[in-house]
Amino acid sequence: MAPLPAVLVSAAAPDGRRSIATAAWAGIVCSDPPTLGIALRPTRFTHGLIVASGEMVVNVPRSDQVKIVDYCGLVSGRDEDKFSVAGLTPAKGQQLAHAPLVAECPVNLECRIKDRITLGSHDLFIGEIVGVHVDEEALDERGRLDVARLDPLAYVAGQYWKLGERLGLQGLARHK
Amino acid sequence: MAPLPAVLVSAAAPDGRRSIATAAWAGIVCSDPPTLGIALRPTRFTHGLIVASGEMVVNVPRSDQVKIVDYCGLVSGRDEDKFSVAGLTPAKGQQLAHAPLVAECPVNLECRIKDRITLGSHDLFIGEIVGVHVDEEALDERGRLDVARLDPLAYVAGQYWKLGERLGLQGLARHK
Repeated sequence: MAPLPAVLVSAAAPDGRRSIATAAWAGIVCSDPPTLGIALRPTRFTHGLIVASGEMVVNVPRSDQVKIVDYCGLVSGRDEDKFSVAGLTPAKGQQLAHAPLVAECPVNLECRIKDRITLGSHDLFIGEIVGVHVDEEALDERGRLDVARLDPLAYVAGQYWKLGERLGLQGLARHK
Repeated sequence: MAPLPAVLVSAAAPDGRRSIATAAWAGIVCSDPPTLGIALRPTRFTHGLIVASGEMVVNVPRSDQVKIVDYCGLVSGRDEDKFSVAGLTPAKGQQLAHAPLVAECPVNLECRIKDRITLGSHDLFIGEIVGVHVDEEALDERGRLDVARLDPLAYVAGQYWKLGERLGLQGLARHK
Protein backbone atom coordinates (compact mmCIF):
# COMPACT_ATOMS: atom_id res chain seq x y z
CA MET A 1 0.00 0.00 0.00
CA ALA A 2 1.53 3.31 -0.97
CA PRO A 3 1.94 6.05 -0.04
CA LEU A 4 1.23 5.89 3.68
CA PRO A 5 1.12 8.91 6.00
CA ALA A 6 3.99 9.06 8.50
CA VAL A 7 2.39 10.42 11.66
CA LEU A 8 3.27 10.97 15.31
CA VAL A 9 0.86 9.47 17.84
CA SER A 10 1.09 11.14 21.25
CA ALA A 11 -0.47 9.87 24.46
CA ALA A 12 -0.16 10.13 28.24
CA ALA A 13 -1.33 7.96 31.09
CA PRO A 14 -3.35 9.48 33.95
CA ASP A 15 -0.18 9.15 36.11
CA GLY A 16 1.68 11.58 33.82
CA ARG A 17 3.86 9.20 31.79
CA ARG A 18 3.85 10.44 28.20
CA SER A 19 5.33 9.50 24.89
CA ILE A 20 5.18 9.74 21.11
CA ALA A 21 5.10 6.82 18.67
CA THR A 22 5.73 6.98 14.94
CA ALA A 23 3.10 5.15 12.91
CA ALA A 24 2.64 4.71 9.19
CA TRP A 25 -0.31 2.42 9.55
CA ALA A 26 -2.77 5.18 9.99
CA GLY A 27 -5.89 6.07 8.07
CA ILE A 28 -9.30 7.62 8.14
CA VAL A 29 -11.89 4.88 8.54
CA CYS A 30 -15.18 6.78 8.77
CA SER A 31 -16.43 10.31 8.00
CA ASP A 32 -19.52 10.38 10.24
CA PRO A 33 -18.58 10.21 13.02
CA PRO A 34 -15.05 11.23 11.97
CA THR A 35 -12.94 8.27 12.93
CA LEU A 36 -9.39 7.13 12.32
CA GLY A 37 -7.46 3.94 12.77
CA ILE A 38 -3.89 3.52 14.05
CA ALA A 39 -2.08 0.18 14.18
CA LEU A 40 0.53 -0.24 16.93
CA ARG A 41 2.40 -3.21 18.36
CA PRO A 42 1.27 -4.02 21.94
CA THR A 43 4.95 -3.88 23.00
CA ARG A 44 5.17 -0.15 22.18
CA PHE A 45 5.24 2.10 25.25
CA THR A 46 2.69 4.45 23.67
CA HIS A 47 0.30 1.51 23.19
CA GLY A 48 0.05 1.12 26.98
CA LEU A 49 -0.50 4.84 27.46
CA ILE A 50 -3.39 4.80 24.98
CA VAL A 51 -4.95 1.80 26.72
CA ALA A 52 -4.52 3.45 30.14
CA SER A 53 -6.06 6.78 29.11
CA GLY A 54 -8.46 5.87 26.30
CA GLU A 55 -7.04 8.82 24.34
CA MET A 56 -4.49 9.64 21.66
CA VAL A 57 -3.52 12.54 19.45
CA VAL A 58 -2.55 11.92 15.83
CA ASN A 59 -0.11 14.63 14.73
CA VAL A 60 0.62 15.10 11.01
CA PRO A 61 4.19 16.34 10.51
CA ARG A 62 5.72 18.39 7.70
CA SER A 63 8.30 16.72 5.50
CA ASP A 64 11.06 18.86 7.06
CA GLN A 65 10.29 17.13 10.37
CA VAL A 66 11.42 13.77 8.96
CA LYS A 67 14.31 13.37 11.43
CA ILE A 68 11.98 13.85 14.38
CA VAL A 69 9.51 11.36 12.92
CA ASP A 70 12.25 8.81 12.36
CA TYR A 71 13.75 9.36 15.83
CA CYS A 72 10.36 8.77 17.50
CA GLY A 73 10.18 5.43 15.68
CA LEU A 74 13.69 4.35 16.67
CA VAL A 75 13.68 4.76 20.46
CA SER A 76 11.26 3.68 23.17
CA GLY A 77 9.49 6.04 25.51
CA ARG A 78 10.53 3.68 28.28
CA ASP A 79 14.13 4.85 27.77
CA GLU A 80 13.79 8.52 26.86
CA ASP A 81 11.25 11.31 27.15
CA LYS A 82 10.89 11.99 23.44
CA PHE A 83 9.34 15.43 23.93
CA SER A 84 12.47 16.57 25.79
CA VAL A 85 15.05 14.83 23.59
CA ALA A 86 13.48 15.98 20.32
CA GLY A 87 12.68 19.47 21.62
CA LEU A 88 8.95 19.05 21.07
CA THR A 89 6.30 20.95 22.98
CA PRO A 90 3.46 18.98 24.63
CA ALA A 91 0.37 21.21 24.33
CA LYS A 92 -2.98 20.80 26.01
CA GLY A 93 -5.79 19.96 23.64
CA GLN A 94 -9.36 21.16 23.90
CA GLN A 95 -11.16 17.85 24.39
CA LEU A 96 -8.82 15.35 25.99
CA ALA A 97 -7.84 15.04 29.66
CA HIS A 98 -4.41 13.48 29.22
CA ALA A 99 -3.01 13.08 25.69
CA PRO A 100 -0.83 16.07 24.70
CA LEU A 101 -0.62 17.55 21.20
CA VAL A 102 2.79 17.84 19.53
CA ALA A 103 2.63 21.62 19.12
CA GLU A 104 5.21 21.75 16.31
CA CYS A 105 3.11 19.59 13.93
CA PRO A 106 0.80 21.52 11.56
CA VAL A 107 -2.20 19.21 12.13
CA ASN A 108 -3.30 17.60 15.40
CA LEU A 109 -6.30 15.28 15.67
CA GLU A 110 -7.56 14.63 19.20
CA CYS A 111 -9.09 11.15 19.42
CA ARG A 112 -11.12 9.23 21.98
CA ILE A 113 -10.55 5.49 21.64
CA LYS A 114 -13.75 3.68 20.67
CA ASP A 115 -12.36 0.21 20.08
CA ARG A 116 -9.16 -1.81 20.08
CA ILE A 117 -9.05 -4.69 17.63
CA THR A 118 -6.47 -7.40 18.23
CA LEU A 119 -5.12 -8.61 14.89
CA GLY A 120 -1.85 -10.43 15.64
CA SER A 121 1.41 -8.50 15.72
CA HIS A 122 -0.52 -5.22 15.88
CA ASP A 123 -3.59 -3.84 17.59
CA LEU A 124 -5.81 -1.48 15.62
CA PHE A 125 -7.01 1.46 17.69
CA ILE A 126 -10.24 3.02 16.43
CA GLY A 127 -10.39 6.63 17.55
CA GLU A 128 -13.19 9.13 17.15
CA ILE A 129 -11.79 12.54 16.18
CA VAL A 130 -13.13 14.97 18.78
CA GLY A 131 -10.83 17.92 18.15
CA VAL A 132 -8.94 19.24 15.12
CA HIS A 133 -6.13 21.81 15.14
CA VAL A 134 -4.61 23.13 11.92
CA ASP A 135 -1.69 25.55 11.88
CA GLU A 136 -2.55 28.79 10.07
CA GLU A 137 0.61 28.41 8.02
CA ALA A 138 -0.95 25.32 6.38
CA LEU A 139 -3.99 27.31 5.21
CA ASP A 140 -4.42 29.46 2.11
CA GLU A 141 -5.76 33.02 2.01
CA ARG A 142 -9.33 31.74 2.14
CA GLY A 143 -8.70 29.57 5.19
CA ARG A 144 -8.67 26.27 3.34
CA LEU A 145 -6.03 23.57 3.73
CA ASP A 146 -3.18 24.21 1.28
CA VAL A 147 -1.52 20.87 0.58
CA ALA A 148 1.76 22.42 -0.63
CA ARG A 149 2.02 24.45 2.59
CA LEU A 150 1.00 21.45 4.69
CA ASP A 151 3.87 19.58 2.98
CA PRO A 152 3.07 16.18 4.53
CA LEU A 153 5.53 13.32 4.90
CA ALA A 154 4.91 10.09 2.99
CA TYR A 155 6.25 6.67 3.93
CA VAL A 156 6.70 4.05 1.22
CA ALA A 157 8.52 0.73 1.56
CA GLY A 158 10.92 1.87 4.30
CA GLN A 159 11.57 5.28 2.70
CA TYR A 160 10.41 8.81 3.43
CA TRP A 161 9.20 10.98 0.53
CA LYS A 162 7.91 14.48 -0.08
CA LEU A 163 4.93 15.11 -2.31
CA GLY A 164 5.75 16.35 -5.80
CA GLU A 165 3.41 17.47 -8.57
CA ARG A 166 -0.30 18.10 -8.03
CA LEU A 167 -2.19 16.11 -10.67
CA GLY A 168 -5.64 17.56 -10.15
CA LEU A 169 -8.80 17.69 -8.10
CA GLN A 170 -11.12 14.84 -7.26
CA GLY A 171 -13.71 14.79 -10.05
CA LEU A 172 -11.19 15.47 -12.82
CA ALA A 173 -12.52 12.52 -14.85
CA ARG A 174 -15.89 14.29 -15.03
CA HIS A 175 -14.46 16.93 -17.32
CA LYS A 176 -13.03 14.69 -20.04
CA MET B 1 -4.40 12.59 7.66
CA ALA B 2 -2.05 12.99 4.72
CA PRO B 3 -1.03 11.65 2.34
CA LEU B 4 -3.46 8.80 1.80
CA PRO B 5 -3.05 6.08 -0.84
CA ALA B 6 -5.59 6.24 -3.67
CA VAL B 7 -6.35 2.59 -4.44
CA LEU B 8 -8.78 0.56 -6.52
CA VAL B 9 -10.72 -2.13 -4.66
CA SER B 10 -12.04 -4.85 -6.96
CA ALA B 11 -14.55 -7.52 -6.04
CA ALA B 12 -17.07 -9.91 -7.58
CA ALA B 13 -20.08 -11.76 -6.21
CA PRO B 14 -20.39 -15.52 -6.71
CA ASP B 15 -23.12 -14.77 -9.32
CA GLY B 16 -20.57 -12.93 -11.49
CA ARG B 17 -21.44 -9.28 -10.79
CA ARG B 18 -18.17 -7.38 -10.50
CA SER B 19 -16.97 -3.87 -9.89
CA ILE B 20 -14.17 -1.57 -8.79
CA ALA B 21 -14.37 1.07 -6.05
CA THR B 22 -11.92 3.89 -5.45
CA ALA B 23 -10.87 4.18 -1.82
CA ALA B 24 -8.45 6.51 -0.07
CA TRP B 25 -9.25 5.21 3.36
CA ALA B 26 -6.95 2.27 3.07
CA GLY B 27 -4.06 1.17 5.20
CA ILE B 28 -1.99 -1.69 6.51
CA VAL B 29 -3.22 -2.63 9.98
CA CYS B 30 -1.07 -5.64 10.91
CA SER B 31 2.16 -7.25 9.65
CA ASP B 32 1.67 -10.79 11.03
CA PRO B 33 -0.64 -11.93 9.66
CA PRO B 34 -0.38 -9.31 6.89
CA THR B 35 -3.67 -7.47 7.09
CA LEU B 36 -5.15 -4.33 5.60
CA GLY B 37 -8.16 -2.18 6.24
CA ILE B 38 -10.45 -0.53 3.69
CA ALA B 39 -13.31 1.80 4.62
CA LEU B 40 -16.31 1.85 2.27
CA ARG B 41 -19.82 3.23 2.52
CA PRO B 42 -22.44 0.42 2.73
CA THR B 43 -24.27 2.07 -0.20
CA ARG B 44 -21.33 1.37 -2.56
CA PHE B 45 -22.01 -1.44 -5.05
CA THR B 46 -18.57 -2.93 -4.37
CA HIS B 47 -19.38 -3.08 -0.65
CA GLY B 48 -22.15 -5.59 -1.37
CA LEU B 49 -19.88 -7.66 -3.61
CA ILE B 50 -17.28 -7.90 -0.85
CA VAL B 51 -19.91 -8.96 1.68
CA ALA B 52 -21.33 -11.54 -0.75
CA SER B 53 -17.96 -13.11 -1.59
CA GLY B 54 -15.83 -12.48 1.52
CA GLU B 55 -13.04 -11.34 -0.80
CA MET B 56 -11.49 -8.21 -2.26
CA VAL B 57 -8.40 -7.20 -4.17
CA VAL B 58 -6.63 -3.94 -3.32
CA ASN B 59 -4.92 -2.62 -6.46
CA VAL B 60 -2.29 0.14 -6.12
CA PRO B 61 -2.30 2.35 -9.24
CA ARG B 62 0.48 4.43 -10.77
CA SER B 63 0.08 8.19 -10.77
CA ASP B 64 -0.50 8.17 -14.54
CA GLN B 65 -3.66 6.13 -13.89
CA VAL B 66 -5.24 9.03 -12.01
CA LYS B 67 -8.12 9.44 -14.49
CA ILE B 68 -9.09 5.79 -14.11
CA VAL B 69 -8.92 6.06 -10.32
CA ASP B 70 -11.07 9.16 -10.35
CA TYR B 71 -13.57 7.65 -12.79
CA CYS B 72 -14.00 4.57 -10.59
CA GLY B 73 -14.88 6.87 -7.69
CA LEU B 74 -17.39 8.92 -9.68
CA VAL B 75 -19.71 6.26 -11.11
CA SER B 76 -21.51 3.28 -9.57
CA GLY B 77 -20.99 -0.31 -10.63
CA ARG B 78 -24.78 -0.56 -10.63
CA ASP B 79 -24.84 1.69 -13.72
CA GLU B 80 -21.69 0.71 -15.65
CA ASP B 81 -19.26 -2.18 -15.82
CA LYS B 82 -16.16 -0.21 -14.90
CA PHE B 83 -13.75 -2.82 -16.26
CA SER B 84 -15.30 -2.42 -19.72
CA VAL B 85 -15.76 1.34 -19.68
CA ALA B 86 -12.25 2.06 -18.35
CA GLY B 87 -10.62 -0.60 -20.52
CA LEU B 88 -9.31 -2.52 -17.51
CA THR B 89 -8.53 -6.24 -17.54
CA PRO B 90 -10.02 -8.45 -14.82
CA ALA B 91 -7.36 -11.08 -14.07
CA LYS B 92 -7.69 -14.25 -12.03
CA GLY B 93 -5.69 -14.20 -8.81
CA GLN B 94 -3.95 -17.14 -7.24
CA GLN B 95 -5.86 -17.42 -3.97
CA LEU B 96 -9.34 -16.02 -4.43
CA ALA B 97 -12.36 -17.67 -5.99
CA HIS B 98 -14.19 -14.59 -7.18
CA ALA B 99 -12.49 -11.18 -6.81
CA PRO B 100 -10.56 -10.21 -9.96
CA LEU B 101 -7.28 -8.32 -10.01
CA VAL B 102 -7.05 -5.10 -12.03
CA ALA B 103 -4.25 -6.32 -14.29
CA GLU B 104 -3.07 -2.83 -15.29
CA CYS B 105 -2.16 -1.84 -11.70
CA PRO B 106 1.46 -2.50 -10.66
CA VAL B 107 0.55 -3.98 -7.26
CA ASN B 108 -2.39 -6.25 -6.44
CA LEU B 109 -3.13 -7.52 -2.93
CA GLU B 110 -5.55 -10.45 -2.72
CA CYS B 111 -7.48 -10.32 0.56
CA ARG B 112 -9.82 -12.60 2.44
CA ILE B 113 -12.21 -10.64 4.64
CA LYS B 114 -11.70 -11.40 8.32
CA ASP B 115 -14.00 -8.83 9.84
CA ARG B 116 -16.35 -5.98 8.99
CA ILE B 117 -16.60 -3.22 11.57
CA THR B 118 -19.61 -0.93 11.40
CA LEU B 119 -18.56 2.60 12.30
CA GLY B 120 -21.30 4.92 11.03
CA SER B 121 -21.17 6.29 7.49
CA HIS B 122 -18.50 3.70 6.59
CA ASP B 123 -17.77 0.05 7.27
CA LEU B 124 -14.18 -0.96 7.83
CA PHE B 125 -13.28 -4.21 6.08
CA ILE B 126 -10.36 -6.07 7.65
CA GLY B 127 -8.73 -8.25 5.00
CA GLU B 128 -5.91 -10.75 5.40
CA ILE B 129 -3.49 -10.44 2.49
CA VAL B 130 -3.24 -13.94 1.01
CA GLY B 131 -1.63 -13.11 -2.33
CA VAL B 132 0.69 -10.36 -3.57
CA HIS B 133 1.43 -9.50 -7.20
CA VAL B 134 4.02 -6.86 -8.14
CA ASP B 135 4.68 -5.82 -11.71
CA GLU B 136 8.33 -6.39 -12.70
CA GLU B 137 8.46 -2.83 -14.01
CA ALA B 138 8.07 -1.61 -10.39
CA LEU B 139 11.16 -3.57 -9.25
CA ASP B 140 14.83 -2.62 -9.40
CA GLU B 141 17.65 -4.75 -10.81
CA ARG B 142 17.84 -6.70 -7.56
CA GLY B 143 14.15 -7.49 -7.50
CA ARG B 144 13.25 -5.01 -4.78
CA LEU B 145 10.38 -2.55 -4.92
CA ASP B 146 11.56 0.70 -6.55
CA VAL B 147 9.33 3.48 -5.28
CA ALA B 148 10.11 5.85 -8.17
CA ARG B 149 9.14 3.15 -10.68
CA LEU B 150 6.07 2.21 -8.64
CA ASP B 151 5.10 5.91 -8.85
CA PRO B 152 2.07 5.61 -6.54
CA LEU B 153 -0.83 8.05 -6.44
CA ALA B 154 -1.43 10.09 -3.29
CA TYR B 155 -4.74 11.61 -2.24
CA VAL B 156 -4.75 14.66 0.03
CA ALA B 157 -7.74 16.84 0.87
CA GLY B 158 -9.64 16.19 -2.37
CA GLN B 159 -6.54 16.42 -4.58
CA TYR B 160 -4.35 13.88 -6.35
CA TRP B 161 -0.57 14.21 -6.06
CA LYS B 162 2.55 12.45 -7.29
CA LEU B 163 5.47 11.74 -4.99
CA GLY B 164 8.41 14.13 -5.30
CA GLU B 165 11.77 14.01 -3.59
CA ARG B 166 13.00 10.99 -1.62
CA LEU B 167 14.13 12.25 1.80
CA GLY B 168 15.86 9.13 3.05
CA LEU B 169 15.54 5.66 4.49
CA GLN B 170 13.85 4.64 7.70
CA GLY B 171 16.57 4.82 10.38
CA LEU B 172 18.10 8.05 9.04
CA ALA B 173 17.99 9.62 12.53
CA ARG B 174 20.35 6.87 13.74
CA HIS B 175 23.19 8.36 11.72
CA LYS B 176 23.13 11.92 13.07
